[in-house]
Amino acid sequence: MNTYKELFSLVEQKIQQLNFDKQPKELYEPISYMLSLGGKRLRPVLVLMAADLFDGDVNKAIDAALAVEVFHNFTLVHDDIMDNSDIRRGQPTVHKKWDQTVAILSGDLMMIKATDLLCETETSNLKKLISIFNKAGAEVCEGQQIDMNFEKLNDVSVDEYIDMITLKTAVLLGCSLSLGAAVANANDSDLENIYEFGKCIGIAFQIQDDILDSFGEGEKVGKKIGGDIAANKKTLLLIKAFELADENTKNELQKLIDSTQINVDEKINAVLKIYEKLTVRTESEKLQQQYLTQAFSHLDKINVTADKKEILHNTANDLMQRMS
Amino acid sequence: MNTYKELFSLVEQKIQQLNFDKQPKELYEPISYMLSLGGKRLRPVLVLMAADLFDGDVNKAIDAALAVEVFHNFTLVHDDIMDNSDIRRGQPTVHKKWDQTVAILSGDLMMIKATDLLCETETSNLKKLISIFNKAGAEVCEGQQIDMNFEKLNDVSVDEYIDMITLKTAVLLGCSLSLGAAVANANDSDLENIYEFGKCIGIAFQIQDDILDSFGEGEKVGKKIGGDIAANKKTLLLIKAFELADENTKNELQKLIDSTQINVDEKINAVLKIYEKLTVRTESEKLQQQYLTQAFSHLDKINVTADKKEILHNTANDLMQRMS
Repeated sequence: MNTYKELFSLVEQKIQQLNFDKQPKELYEPISYMLSLGGKRLRPVLVLMAADLFDGDVNKAIDAALAVEVFHNFTLVHDDIMDNSDIRRGQPTVHKKWDQTVAILSGDLMMIKATDLLCETETSNLKKLISIFNKAGAEVCEGQQIDMNFEKLNDVSVDEYIDMITLKTAVLLGCSLSLGAAVANANDSDLENIYEFGKCIGIAFQIQDDILDSFGEGEKVGKKIGGDIAANKKTLLLIKAFELADENTKNELQKLIDSTQINVDEKINAVLKIYEKLTVRTESEKLQQQYLTQAFSHLDKINVTADKKEILHNTANDLMQRMS
Repeated sequence: MNTYKELFSLVEQKIQQLNFDKQPKELYEPISYMLSLGGKRLRPVLVLMAADLFDGDVNKAIDAALAVEVFHNFTLVHDDIMDNSDIRRGQPTVHKKWDQTVAILSGDLMMIKATDLLCETETSNLKKLISIFNKAGAEVCEGQQIDMNFEKLNDVSVDEYIDMITLKTAVLLGCSLSLGAAVANANDSDLENIYEFGKCIGIAFQIQDDILDSFGEGEKVGKKIGGDIAANKKTLLLIKAFELADENTKNELQKLIDSTQINVDEKINAVLKIYEKLTVRTESEKLQQQYLTQAFSHLDKINVTADKKEILHNTANDLMQRMS
């Protein structure tokens, strides 16, 4: 079994070997740019870990791993347009550094290149790989649209929120693991369990993200605490708060959300106080723990020896313990 | 051999059977909407014609045909955002009818669904089909980016213009024919020739489009004559005009392009007069004819009996003779 570090290095090395030195440069440079911004490379590493888990050759799964990473970056480029985000990993977003046309088109091209990479995979199972990949791809689009719709809604339930993050974030982790497992010819039951493991980890991970935005240690998170509160983002914390609040607290919270006059720091502090009063952090952590438990029960069901599963177990726990 | 009308009917029937009645509706409705706007269905019909040409079963090529049509519509949705177009086939564009987020995301989803459809094709040649499809897909993105770049350039040559329309428009016709031929297991030489036939027809077709915009019969073209002139679009006619003009005429033309004061109809008339003086229409028609001749020479080389090629010959001629 390879370690996260070893698989990460392999992914980095292969990403650097991808050649996007083509014309027109406005179209190809943003691809190299996005891929150079770094990150944990969680998704491609998961592809390789799953291949490893089922005794597959990680080198045979590398193209599928790169496909998922390129696909993920395509969604970031288009999401940044929709979210009007200026900064991504401390650097200007593609539509800011170039322009919107470049961001739309280079995103489109990244999606095509992702499929190209997937088709490079040495497998007798290509149709299955594409089917796993495209199902997740469509769901990621659905999740993003639902998230956009949430901005205009007042009453989002916890279930609706979980459905949204499942589509927007979690299915791609499930997809990554399934792809690696499929390259290693895992059987259908194992494929299903590793997919569900990844999906549940993804949900827990996104809940963690929401918690950190309000309760993380600012310096470690690397961004200002309370960004979601300032932006009135419908996070699990806010949805839980509305669910748990009495009529007075609900009105107070709504007033803070609607106010355009209040100073941002005051707003964040006031909302955080309500969150503390309502124990939304504990409630959210409970839900996170439920999904983590569900994830591990799927991992348990996979028909390989326990020692081989250890790395996935540890990776999941590491993700949950990060403070940034 | 099936007629255009028969193949068109089959395509229409299968498009109507596609089911996009899914959630979130903002994401799926624009797909049905775009596909319901009609048109010649040239690309999917070409897929089926090519399958027919090589004695393939058109029913086996129908999913590839639908894939190309869905892909084409995806490019239209994203192009309309970039071109800031309000109207498409007499109806509001997706970003106008819904919003930009919906247009970006439903376009993305259409691209994924196009690949899905392609993978439905009953073939032992899936990797080849995807490779043909993705190559054209990437080139269409390149062509659109180059076209966008042209807006900021002053000196575009005829060769650069031909390269741009080849990528933006022509390769998808070549791709359509290749896909149908590949489903029918045509050999590599025939695949190459039918691709080149489609590509050359596509170039001739786009030149025709430029000519019609300035010299078509307004009512038949269904849009105001001179739209390209009014928008300072770098068409073959404008590029040819700059190529053929003496210094005085060049200055006159540049002045018309730069002027923000002049009445639009006066501008169109003045530019048309220069076009007539320089015989750019005749020059453009000559170039169109060259590509048409080149197209037919590729068709001639294809190793099937001449009577079977007749329908492609006639379809190409019909496309060139349209006044709208």
